[in-house]
Amino acid sequence: MSGTTLDDYTDRYAQRVHGMAQSEIRALFSVASRPEVVSLAGGNPYTAALPLGDVGEMFAEMLATDGAKALLYGPGQGDVALREAICMVMADSGIDLSSGASPDDVVVTVGAQQALDLLTRVFCDPGDVVIAEGPTYVGALGVFQAAQCQVVHVPVDDEGLIPEALEETLAVLAKAGKRPKFLYTVPTYQNPTGVTLTEARRERVLDICEAADLLVVEDDPYGALGFEGQPPRPLRARRRSGIFYVGTFSKTFAAGLRVGWVLAPPAVRDKIVLATEAAILCPSALAQGAVVRYLTAMPWREQVKTFRELYASRRDALLSALTDYMPAGMRWTKPGGGLFVWAELPEGLDSKAMLPRALQQRVAYVPGTGFYADGSGRGQMRLNFSFPPADRIREGVRRLADVISEQSALSQTFEGAAPRTDDA
Amino acid sequence: MSGTTLDDYTDRYAQRVHGMAQSEIRALFSVASRPEVVSLAGGNPYTAALPLGDVGEMFAEMLATDGAKALLYGPGQGDVALREAICMVMADSGIDLSSGASPDDVVVTVGAQQALDLLTRVFCDPGDVVIAEGPTYVGALGVFQAAQCQVVHVPVDDEGLIPEALEETLAVLAKAGKRPKFLYTVPTYQNPTGVTLTEARRERVLDICEAADLLVVEDDPYGALGFEGQPPRPLRARRRSGIFYVGTFSKTFAAGLRVGWVLAPPAVRDKIVLATEAAILCPSALAQGAVVRYLTAMPWREQVKTFRELYASRRDALLSALTDYMPAGMRWTKPGGGLFVWAELPEGLDSKAMLPRALQQRVAYVPGTGFYADGSGRGQMRLNFSFPPADRIREGVRRLADVISEQSALSQTFEGAAPRTDDA
Repeated sequence: MSGTTLDDYTDRYAQRVHGMAQSEIRALFSVASRPEVVSLAGGNPYTAALPLGDVGEMFAEMLATDGAKALLYGPGQGDVALREAICMVMADSGIDLSSGASPDDVVVTVGAQQALDLLTRVFCDPGDVVIAEGPTYVGALGVFQAAQCQVVHVPVDDEGLIPEALEETLAVLAKAGKRPKFLYTVPTYQNPTGVTLTEARRERVLDICEAADLLVVEDDPYGALGFEGQPPRPLRARRRSGIFYVGTFSKTFAAGLRVGWVLAPPAVRDKIVLATEAAILCPSALAQGAVVRYLTAMPWREQVKTFRELYASRRDALLSALTDYMPAGMRWTKPGGGLFVWAELPEGLDSKAMLPRALQQRVAYVPGTGFYADGSGRGQMRLNFSFPPADRIREGVRRLADVISEQSALSQTFEGAAPRTDDA
Repeated sequence: MSGTTLDDYTDRYAQRVHGMAQSEIRALFSVASRPEVVSLAGGNPYTAALPLGDVGEMFAEMLATDGAKALLYGPGQGDVALREAICMVMADSGIDLSSGASPDDVVVTVGAQQALDLLTRVFCDPGDVVIAEGPTYVGALGVFQAAQCQVVHVPVDDEGLIPEALEETLAVLAKAGKRPKFLYTVPTYQNPTGVTLTEARRERVLDICEAADLLVVEDDPYGALGFEGQPPRPLRARRRSGIFYVGTFSKTFAAGLRVGWVLAPPAVRDKIVLATEAAILCPSALAQGAVVRYLTAMPWREQVKTFRELYASRRDALLSALTDYMPAGMRWTKPGGGLFVWAELPEGLDSKAMLPRALQQRVAYVPGTGFYADGSGRGQMRLNFSFPPADRIREGVRRLADVISEQSALSQTFEGAAPRTDDA
């Protein structure tokens, strides 16, 4: 301990530490948050659209009338009042008592992120295989990496996860003697692509999972943020067993409260409660009380409508700016909800290599590589439309289009000189 | 998935699940929280002593002026304003710039519990050895069990961890070829015993750890709750390296916010940040903002003094009731701070076996077995004095004394018939 070096601890770490790498999104944040940069890189909801004064009054009232309890420890599973309210929220999307959803089966978590972490802790040993969409949520990749899991991607198209590709992947894994622990999927307004698994494919994917005896972790943070009516019902509304449903109030109320949940059958629920007690003892009583009040005493469905309309208009701003400014060869998704558009660069461009130039031109995005465990994604990028105002989005796309056009011209000049590494 | 049994998932769990067991404290909560029961079993601070109206106004003001940010995601490491305020708090106990403590080296966590979990995730592989006081904090045992660690206890006496016993344990482990990952210790007003590692022993324990190249995790939730002046300086104030200091606002402000921290050198800090991003993405911006405001705009040192005086008077109530009511053969600690007294039953009694009878007599405590990883503790119990008012404490001890006297009489009648299992 006396001979101080750069890292005295190198030979002391657990194995799992060696698989942990900083996510590309997190590394970006410091630069992207400078005021002169238009950041299409974030994933923040637009909390300024909340009635902040009313929310403040709600807290004041809660502390004045019920403060001693709101500032105490509570049960590891979460408060029963919140678990009941969560069942009411899930019923809106079709997950109700007839699907076997009860407050007893809900575990409150520190955002959906902790739900993913807990499920992974309960099911995955090092070396276990997890199947996920490619691309998928970067935070889920962080969980799987920390758990030393092997992530196998299944591609998506405009209709979501491709069932035939899932079947093929399962066959390859079976042949290799590997039994995947679960399919992790964001079926509705996916992060990062914005695409939604279609009605027909939902049943098909579930049938495939059932036939393969494959558990499903359904992550549904964006289901309430549909711009053109209700999305197809969640997977969990279609099957009672084999599916763990993960939800959050980060997009329907506030990410800063860190309140999410997982719905799990009793036996698994008990394991999840033990795992969360070891991890955090119990979720915040104050945050839980606030969500209960928001759901029972405030016009929260109106508020979600406000978010939907705002994001729909910003999505429109993003899509029309892309159409107006982007050079030929550029393609992108047209999401029906959520927070993100996924864009594919013209042949030969590399979103990761291009990022410093884009930041120099005062626009930020997330390179596609962050959303794959296997180094894919250099030809893609994620663009956020929930946080920047419409005029900033338009300006950001204009700057980005300039960078892409410039890089395209460069790339055509030196054609074939620098092949994209993930195409090898 | 169709053939539903009690637990369809048995053959799917990760290895670590098999080591997870419900803590005895948690299992108790439902019975112990009935109003007719005097619960000396809890560990709750007395949040009703907070100026709840003022705290509510503080939240209202924060949301009105800075609400959009307080409801957003933030950095995984925690907000810099809070990390600066944490350094101010640590400086009060002697951990300051001269000890190399800087806001850069602080990671904000979901209570101290998550700090313990993160440190364990970063350092411990399954099978690794962790040294801890015997008895020790039950929540730490939960973390170590979930991480599949082997816990080796070192006994404590009225002056805290016994240095000679630590040396002996290290020698035995070295002989067995085992290198322990760290010593987990609560040196000040320990949970569950209430004892404090003396000034002389602090240096001795640190010297032993240094000589053995053993890392130290110093958990200090109660250091600010000393009833007779300041406790000895924390271990981290005495050594710059090899010590991870864990703190929390659960006892100086509010447990329901779930805000704690860990102070770690840069290399380890980076690993901890990656681990926490995988676990929860980021701590609650709202809770962090509330703590910053509490520490900068409210008379928090006065408030801690209020807690100290209240708990001191309740400790006195507990100690005098024990003296007045308990039968011969019963012994207990006299804590100089914190929340707990540790009591030893008359020879032959079993705190775990006695609990149902105590609950029937409307008094609850935690059997000592919860605080050991090895089944010890049947002759001991933990008594809390921070939460119940003084007259309830006195009444609880009276009921408990009746149960103990009754069991003692029974035990003497059938002497030798039922030896305590941990004495074997």
